[in-house]
Amino acid sequence: MFRRLMTLDEAKQIISKYSPSEPLGSEEVALLRAYNRVLAEDAISTLDIPPFNRSTVDGYAVRAQDTFGIEEDRPIKLKVCGTVTVGEKPRIKIDSGEAAEIVTGAPIPNGADAVVMLEDIERKNDQLYVYSAVAKDENIMKAGADIKKGETVLRKNHLLTSREIGALAAIGLAKVKAYVLPRVTIISTGAEVAKLGRKLPAGKVYDINAYSLSTAVQESRGIPIYLGVFPDDFGKMRQVLAKALSSSDVVITSGGVSIGPKDVMPKVLDSLGKPGIIVYGIAIKPGKPVTVASVDGKLIFSLPGHPTSALLVFYLLVRPIIERLAGKKADETLQVKAVTSARMFSAKGRRTFIMVKLKDGPTGLMAEPVAAGLSGAITTLTNADGFVEIAENQQFVDAGEKVTVRLFKKPSC
Amino acid sequence: MFRRLMTLDEAKQIISKYSPSEPLGSEEVALLRAYNRVLAEDAISTLDIPPFNRSTVDGYAVRAQDTFGIEEDRPIKLKVCGTVTVGEKPRIKIDSGEAAEIVTGAPIPNGADAVVMLEDIERKNDQLYVYSAVAKDENIMKAGADIKKGETVLRKNHLLTSREIGALAAIGLAKVKAYVLPRVTIISTGAEVAKLGRKLPAGKVYDINAYSLSTAVQESRGIPIYLGVFPDDFGKMRQVLAKALSSSDVVITSGGVSIGPKDVMPKVLDSLGKPGIIVYGIAIKPGKPVTVASVDGKLIFSLPGHPTSALLVFYLLVRPIIERLAGKKADETLQVKAVTSARMFSAKGRRTFIMVKLKDGPTGLMAEPVAAGLSGAITTLTNADGFVEIAENQQFVDAGEKVTVRLFKKPSC
Repeated sequence: MFRRLMTLDEAKQIISKYSPSEPLGSEEVALLRAYNRVLAEDAISTLDIPPFNRSTVDGYAVRAQDTFGIEEDRPIKLKVCGTVTVGEKPRIKIDSGEAAEIVTGAPIPNGADAVVMLEDIERKNDQLYVYSAVAKDENIMKAGADIKKGETVLRKNHLLTSREIGALAAIGLAKVKAYVLPRVTIISTGAEVAKLGRKLPAGKVYDINAYSLSTAVQESRGIPIYLGVFPDDFGKMRQVLAKALSSSDVVITSGGVSIGPKDVMPKVLDSLGKPGIIVYGIAIKPGKPVTVASVDGKLIFSLPGHPTSALLVFYLLVRPIIERLAGKKADETLQVKAVTSARMFSAKGRRTFIMVKLKDGPTGLMAEPVAAGLSGAITTLTNADGFVEIAENQQFVDAGEKVTVRLFKKPSC
Repeated sequence: MFRRLMTLDEAKQIISKYSPSEPLGSEEVALLRAYNRVLAEDAISTLDIPPFNRSTVDGYAVRAQDTFGIEEDRPIKLKVCGTVTVGEKPRIKIDSGEAAEIVTGAPIPNGADAVVMLEDIERKNDQLYVYSAVAKDENIMKAGADIKKGETVLRKNHLLTSREIGALAAIGLAKVKAYVLPRVTIISTGAEVAKLGRKLPAGKVYDINAYSLSTAVQESRGIPIYLGVFPDDFGKMRQVLAKALSSSDVVITSGGVSIGPKDVMPKVLDSLGKPGIIVYGIAIKPGKPVTVASVDGKLIFSLPGHPTSALLVFYLLVRPIIERLAGKKADETLQVKAVTSARMFSAKGRRTFIMVKLKDGPTGLMAEPVAAGLSGAITTLTNADGFVEIAENQQFVDAGEKVTVRLFKKPSC
């Protein structure tokens, strides 16, 4: 039976429609453990930063007015009435004609409204000669100049890296509310797939996808739960998928989909709940047989068995969903411009993704197709830096053409 | 006393000389937990991948010679003698005149040397009509075509992401040798620094650096150990640093360095072991007061107290050391080209770093200085996307000039 396959854009749209529009819940996380988490509420300062007027230099706190009219050959004389150190509320008060020794970061004592720098004074015992006038507030950082009490320091949905965590520490948040990390169950299927850690039986291949997909889930800020390898058996598969749905937020299977009457997976996917299958094959290459089901608000992605196809479809369809559940605005994968080293053909009528390696070429970056002709090669994974996309209605990209390469790397931290 | 300050390059050189040239030791890590770890030995395949000659299509395994001379209106007739499925060693053998049904990924049965695709055949019970000739090895991926037994799949010092971990799974490595993660102790100093989680006492500021630096250590693939805030007291500081040296690989302190006679830290650093202080101030801005000591083969970095300065010096000097200990080839921070929005002045004779925010400008990316004039502002951390570097002998970068911006983000995964 011939059916028009969905385009990639149609598939994305329908998946988006069936995926939760809100992130999962939130939880309290100690700030020292909040790296790479996503803030679940606006961080609002309950104090001024700095919390007090502080000196930005080593010098002497004075009344600015006392220094007006000073010329270099005509210093004024002030009386040093004490010292202000960091970490304490100053116990002294500066009157006209007085000064207090002060260090960088220390609070400005009452009465003073400027700080004279060390290079502009001379001191003899308690006598201070000031050789340069200072304006009001000179060398002072006012309370709240950096952050005002009540000010929003970071908005929710912000990813927390060293710089954000520094800002949250500044306003004294020892704990923050972060979105819960999505749990993603990974299931491998297929009679040919063998678990790692023992000798490979004849006719089998090791389970690659469980490992590459589990890691890809971590890269997308989810928690992978690997359940193991299961045969293409209706009852068994239905049981394991039902279990996965109850204990995780997203389910990924790989292998065992080839879109044909022999396939057990579509029947299982349609038997678990409503609405069942929402995407049944997509007009892309590689990755065509991908099937997606929605069951009582949770998504199940059945990815192809080929490691490169499975990982590509993960990048295209699954990662954005995990990041949405994690509260993260989906950040674009990194892109670079490059010139193709060879003509790259598309699969007729399908959005085609050509894995490429980037090299330095005579006119800048050059994109070289990886393992063309070695369908399903595992080394494609490690050799490719990214992929070139060819539109459905385009026959090929010519050698020497300028293309956008989407990199597997993505910005983080 | 006037001393010429070291340049940044001199400081880097001397720190590199005193840092261990080899990564720390290695440990066995389960492959499912190896994300973001660095491979400590070459990964060599002990098997061919694929492990057997496999069909790359659904169809019929045949002897290619039987199909020679076929024309479309003159098919040949073969006898179907069985079915080969995935995951099993085929029990049948193909003789001349015979064919076996086969699916993608299944092993080629003995005697067969090509696979005819489904669209080129017609089947009536056991009779197979083949309408198109196939060449020897057509639609077959030979054993070892992807990876040969004995081949090196990944070299040591490679960072493990989803793609590398997929390749290691392919060759059946359930465990890998990864470099040990460096332990980095973080100590805050200064009478003005208060711990988080309680009301801020008068005259104090919250401990920002412990948090931003702990996170920066994680971003650099180290394990942060935060010991707390300690006063600038010789005996106490000496004790805590000695403890840190014995229990970690790198030590970072922040605050309490201003290069002056009052400073306790230099005396402590010189009292712990040989050679002691190797860098005492660097001609950079911000970050000048940074002090580095080497004690019995371990490095102690005393960073300035200003959060932005501390984090900048971490990026410049500490991160490369942590990554070296972690076995990771130091990867360049991401760089972009941008046009400056304003003239940026350098500090005379010092390598100057101007924090900038990137914006879309009329001619592409524009770099706008952040919080100029707000020395020590915490919001600089969250507002800046990266920094512009001005050389020691350069007075300024003009508005509208094209500059390189080093981003705080770096490629990962």
